[in-house]
Amino acid sequence: MSQESKDTDSSTQDFTAYSIIAKKRDGGKLSSEEIKWFISGLTEGRIADYQMSALLMAIYLRGMDTEETAALTDFMLYSGKVLTFEGQNVIDKHSTGGVGDKTSFILAPIAAACGVKVPMISGRGLGHTGGTVDKSEAIPGFKTDLPFEDFQKYVIEHGICMIGQTGEIAPADKKIYALRDVTATIESIPLITASIMSKKLAEGANGLVMDVKTGHGAFMEKKEDAKKLAESLTATGLRFGRNMMTSITDMSQPLGHAIGNSLEIIECIEILKGKGPSDCRDLSLHLAGGMVLLAGLAKTLEEGIEKAKAVVADGSALKVFRDMIERQGGDPEVCEDYTKLPLAQEKTEILSNANGYIHRIDALAMGLHCVDLGGGRKVQSDAVDPGVGFVLHKKVGDKIEAGESLLTVYHNKDQQKLVEHLKDSILGHDIKIDSKKPDVEPLIYETHVNWSQKNV
Amino acid sequence: MSQESKDTDSSTQDFTAYSIIAKKRDGGKLSSEEIKWFISGLTEGRIADYQMSALLMAIYLRGMDTEETAALTDFMLYSGKVLTFEGQNVIDKHSTGGVGDKTSFILAPIAAACGVKVPMISGRGLGHTGGTVDKSEAIPGFKTDLPFEDFQKYVIEHGICMIGQTGEIAPADKKIYALRDVTATIESIPLITASIMSKKLAEGANGLVMDVKTGHGAFMEKKEDAKKLAESLTATGLRFGRNMMTSITDMSQPLGHAIGNSLEIIECIEILKGKGPSDCRDLSLHLAGGMVLLAGLAKTLEEGIEKAKAVVADGSALKVFRDMIERQGGDPEVCEDYTKLPLAQEKTEILSNANGYIHRIDALAMGLHCVDLGGGRKVQSDAVDPGVGFVLHKKVGDKIEAGESLLTVYHNKDQQKLVEHLKDSILGHDIKIDSKKPDVEPLIYETHVNWSQKNV
Repeated sequence: MSQESKDTDSSTQDFTAYSIIAKKRDGGKLSSEEIKWFISGLTEGRIADYQMSALLMAIYLRGMDTEETAALTDFMLYSGKVLTFEGQNVIDKHSTGGVGDKTSFILAPIAAACGVKVPMISGRGLGHTGGTVDKSEAIPGFKTDLPFEDFQKYVIEHGICMIGQTGEIAPADKKIYALRDVTATIESIPLITASIMSKKLAEGANGLVMDVKTGHGAFMEKKEDAKKLAESLTATGLRFGRNMMTSITDMSQPLGHAIGNSLEIIECIEILKGKGPSDCRDLSLHLAGGMVLLAGLAKTLEEGIEKAKAVVADGSALKVFRDMIERQGGDPEVCEDYTKLPLAQEKTEILSNANGYIHRIDALAMGLHCVDLGGGRKVQSDAVDPGVGFVLHKKVGDKIEAGESLLTVYHNKDQQKLVEHLKDSILGHDIKIDSKKPDVEPLIYETHVNWSQKNV
Repeated sequence: MSQESKDTDSSTQDFTAYSIIAKKRDGGKLSSEEIKWFISGLTEGRIADYQMSALLMAIYLRGMDTEETAALTDFMLYSGKVLTFEGQNVIDKHSTGGVGDKTSFILAPIAAACGVKVPMISGRGLGHTGGTVDKSEAIPGFKTDLPFEDFQKYVIEHGICMIGQTGEIAPADKKIYALRDVTATIESIPLITASIMSKKLAEGANGLVMDVKTGHGAFMEKKEDAKKLAESLTATGLRFGRNMMTSITDMSQPLGHAIGNSLEIIECIEILKGKGPSDCRDLSLHLAGGMVLLAGLAKTLEEGIEKAKAVVADGSALKVFRDMIERQGGDPEVCEDYTKLPLAQEKTEILSNANGYIHRIDALAMGLHCVDLGGGRKVQSDAVDPGVGFVLHKKVGDKIEAGESLLTVYHNKDQQKLVEHLKDSILGHDIKIDSKKPDVEPLIYETHVNWSQKNV
């Protein structure tokens, strides 16, 4: 009798939004059927936004285990179009985002030049972190709104294509993310995992390289949270039969020297030419090496990194980048002539007011300053000015003398007052100089490679 | 400098829905300004329902202290009309609701007959608990939609008036309660406190008697939760300068014998005539005694109860009730002739199938059975049939023999099948009979009287 009524309870007929919210509110574990019933109800209009947001807050505060997270990911994934690619060498990369994080433009051509197929669907920036699509649009003519047919064809034939997110991929994520964004339920590991993984799994890659950033400019400020997110992403990826590499990397200071869309594209091309700042270059090679490894084209991560270095050295990675720009309607001459990229007319140097060593460059503050200049978005609908930004001349640990330039601000003519304000903020607290040499945080804290049993 | 920026943060200009939700989500204490900004935003349409429900879930899981609860109460209270009465002897009573809980109709005339002014604004029932307004509407012609002018006039001139809740009193509570009802955020002590107190304070009484029920048929099933709610109600009442009496009372079995609107009105009249079941009579006298005490018309609760007993014995409480019915358009002859009340045509006895003692009468189950018969509401828009219900012939602790009637079901002709189903449920598990004499729970667990410093 009690067994019978238990069975009845697990049929979808008896589910109510109330009972599911109450179960999670009280710390219970939601069944796959309950999650499916709720998420499909949201997309069908049976579940109201205010019920979803109550559940989101309950999930935020009570958590979800790997099984629940995988079920949530699954239903978000199949809420839209799901692409598939033949072959094991299709590898995608995702970064949780940061300031000056432009590695996609470097590692994708490198991996493709090594024989990896790289299907890359990226987002736009919001708040202090930039977006890959916004950066790509600094390249005159470059199109990211290609149809899926072209996207799949280019990946298969040429090994690389970069497009923007569309409403067709994981539409449930779009709806849920919009709610999380206004209800303070963003920073939840199961919700972040489901949001990232539903999109990444829909793109059809067989392996995923995940760059989970930590530090003041990152989504996951604390290292232990970044580690938990990396573990959650890995567990979910493995459940879906994906090979996974996760790296936890530093975002306490901006990555590389350039912040701002055109300036970042220039830095990417420089690195593809074997030049550019070492931190951004090293991280790009590390992640590209992981893609080569997951694709089965190297036996170890070290071998993958060596292969990545080789395609930079022989110019083939740059050629892949150049060809991709041309194929997607952009002007490939930007690779040789940086003046083809839109750059702000004015440059102002910010000079050090002290002798010593750089102790801190606040990534979050620098990202927000770039938004203030018009280089990013405060709200979804803002236009982005690709020409503005910063080039840092010093990084944490570097020695500097009073009067030496800390960084160059690229700005428009009418922004003199704003630049004065930025200067006060930067010299006042965003960049800290001290007489003692600081301990420098490592660039890459840890890396884990996990092979899915399905592919082993 | 840091002081300055702190001051800026506390100005309403800088509030965002996100930051307030996030603060409560992280267990922080909301300032009075933040609560005001959020609640006024909800009523003005600046805050969306999905943001309110996220905050409600955060409050449910993180709690609120007395100061926050008082601030929430305050802004909900002043979202609508606030009545005031001169003099200290204006006392209201509130019950957290239960099955067979009809004490309002007994204690209000008793208190009024003792000289207390009783302004009573009541709600309708939903789910297993009945509503005072529904019960009053069993009396032919009785009107509860009087204008506030008449309400105030009748309270002042005659000491008693009973009306239904209107959208003019605490409209923010109405909106918030509707959201809580569908987002599993009902059972939160600060939210319950603010909901009850915003309405009760708006009614202008100077003292409040609170009957906080506990047990399987109550809102607060566990005694410790009922105790916490009683403490929260008291603390909030005292902050608003009200004298408070709170009693924690049993709702593990229905109160009295009658469940169903007309049947309950009959039971009330019987008790006002000095008859009727002892539990319902004793509780009504206890609460009425508390109202007499808070009104300053008795020195002790015991003296208040003695005065209450006296006005029952001399018939003056019944006369107050009769006059109130007449004044509010109802037929006062119901007091003498119960056939004037609508009663279902059919009666079915449910006979005991065992010898022994009654160990349990499940109040929740009996309340839901009454709803099934049409005597209550599953959803807000349901009509209520005043004629159906139950009269219990035995209560917990009573001896019974097989074949003796446990209860009478009052039902309509087309409900035979439903009655058979109820019978199985009642004999199967809702009423439990055992050979050993049970320990009977006390009717009143504890009572606390607290005087506001403003009035002392």
